[in-house]
Amino acid sequence: MASFVSRLHQAIRTKKTAALVGLDPRWEQLPVRIRRAAEEMYDDPAAAKAAAFEEFCVRLIDVVAPLVPAIKPQAAFFEELGPDGSVALARVIRYGRAQGLIVICDAKRGDIGSTAEAYARAYLAGEDPQAAPYAADALTVNPYLGEDTLQPFVELCQKREAGIYVLVRTSNPGAATFQNHQNSEGQTLYEQVSETVEKLALQAGFDGNYGSIGAVVGATYPRELKDLREKMPHVPLLIPGYGAQGGNAADVAAAFDSAGLGAIVNSSRAINFAFRSPAYAESFGEKQWEAAAEAATRAMICDLAANTPAGQLMLDSKEA
Amino acid sequence: MASFVSRLHQAIRTKKTAALVGLDPRWEQLPVRIRRAAEEMYDDPAAAKAAAFEEFCVRLIDVVAPLVPAIKPQAAFFEELGPDGSVALARVIRYGRAQGLIVICDAKRGDIGSTAEAYARAYLAGEDPQAAPYAADALTVNPYLGEDTLQPFVELCQKREAGIYVLVRTSNPGAATFQNHQNSEGQTLYEQVSETVEKLALQAGFDGNYGSIGAVVGATYPRELKDLREKMPHVPLLIPGYGAQGGNAADVAAAFDSAGLGAIVNSSRAINFAFRSPAYAESFGEKQWEAAAEAATRAMICDLAANTPAGQLMLDSKEA
Repeated sequence: MASFVSRLHQAIRTKKTAALVGLDPRWEQLPVRIRRAAEEMYDDPAAAKAAAFEEFCVRLIDVVAPLVPAIKPQAAFFEELGPDGSVALARVIRYGRAQGLIVICDAKRGDIGSTAEAYARAYLAGEDPQAAPYAADALTVNPYLGEDTLQPFVELCQKREAGIYVLVRTSNPGAATFQNHQNSEGQTLYEQVSETVEKLALQAGFDGNYGSIGAVVGATYPRELKDLREKMPHVPLLIPGYGAQGGNAADVAAAFDSAGLGAIVNSSRAINFAFRSPAYAESFGEKQWEAAAEAATRAMICDLAANTPAGQLMLDSKEA
Repeated sequence: MASFVSRLHQAIRTKKTAALVGLDPRWEQLPVRIRRAAEEMYDDPAAAKAAAFEEFCVRLIDVVAPLVPAIKPQAAFFEELGPDGSVALARVIRYGRAQGLIVICDAKRGDIGSTAEAYARAYLAGEDPQAAPYAADALTVNPYLGEDTLQPFVELCQKREAGIYVLVRTSNPGAATFQNHQNSEGQTLYEQVSETVEKLALQAGFDGNYGSIGAVVGATYPRELKDLREKMPHVPLLIPGYGAQGGNAADVAAAFDSAGLGAIVNSSRAINFAFRSPAYAESFGEKQWEAAAEAATRAMICDLAANTPAGQLMLDSKEA
């Protein structure tokens, strides 16, 4: 039995990068050929979209599985398709794991008591891909309802060697509205949440350096990211906001420890739809969308390697 | 076209009660006959459980549809069953609406930008039950990610005459850990969220008295409930925590306006599994679980009518 964080860090060492690829299937942006083929196959629009989402994600997984340690499917896009989307999400997660990837389901769930337990059992398969219908290694979780509502997730993480990433400081423009609510000692809400997460990290899947209770901290707020890294020394970080949302490698450099571990950096749109971006559209175009996604993934890996001390470490160990 | 809050208040006036019945199918607590029949029908455990959940919820809807204005299915229990559960949830929501009930899907979703849009489109059908796969009138939403992340929900509420209920002060024992984070002026996080919700209520489906952007405020904190009612005069409230969680009619009395409107009070377990409670087990027992649920629903309606001024108003208008 290996804890979530141990398995994640092993995968990072093997792939020599902390790049995380988000799977964000957006119908309007999918390659036209995938959309048309699905529409010819299914009369029902939801069934067609779900088939296209699955096809797109599976092919994207084939592209990135040799390159990165982990993927992060976004549940919302699948949910929008109803039950057909749920089938596709379950299959995509299973396929990702079968390709040896760590799968973090981005569903931002949260509820009280036995309802939280139900969400945990829905997504946290941990080591055993048969243990949950959406058989992810880890799940993103929303802390608003309170510390007691995180506990059922923490307990299942412990039991199944799974992980969660608790939202601490998100990457969106309006993240500060509530997360920066400041008490009379100057402590923000997100800092208070970070104290709780640090405490919980020591309770589940702790490998001596990190626990299996992580935190989501956006790349778009580099100063807060650096502070939070220091406030949560035992918490693995999931960093959204790199790439399409504006964060760069310098912004995330402080998130890594001296071994190059402790954080994963997500990019979704810039990789998924690289073929639509000015950087790759001309060289590859829509027919070679997978080659464009591969080039964008390699570019991200190189950027993290070249522009973060941790990335340099990984690179050195590769060349050694 | 009628806004969510108009449709809700019309239903409350027709049924003369603000009682909301939560649908919380918990496998271990379902009537044994429903479980056994489903297990005989399906080899696959998830398919059997989903069939049992649907059967239980449909029969419960038949019991409560003549009595109450609205139901609140809890998404987590369905999600735990994987895609089979999603099919059951979609059907239960559709069935509830077909019986003339307002359906509030309790899924506590929340994400940024276009991801929030996807969740909104998944659940907010509003007036047209064909407009979303999980075709609810309203959805519960988590505000932690920030005001900008509520906006996509608000926009779809406006467009489709749907509603949302934003978590403000939840009913669980640990609700205070983050929600009571207090700034130097003594304002708590939940009070800050309540200011945002009051502002948003004026932006979507406003009927002159209330908007279609609501708030979740627990019955288990009566003082905060009273304060929040005053701080959000145009916000319809969804009040969990009555019944099994310990709140009573006196605790929720302050939530209603002088016309008996502005709030709905939820009870889930105490109605769903009334046949297992000391109060009803002997008179009804498991074979008459629907009669027990009906008795528990009627008891709640009477309790609200007798012990809140608003309920008395409703009762008077019934006798008139």
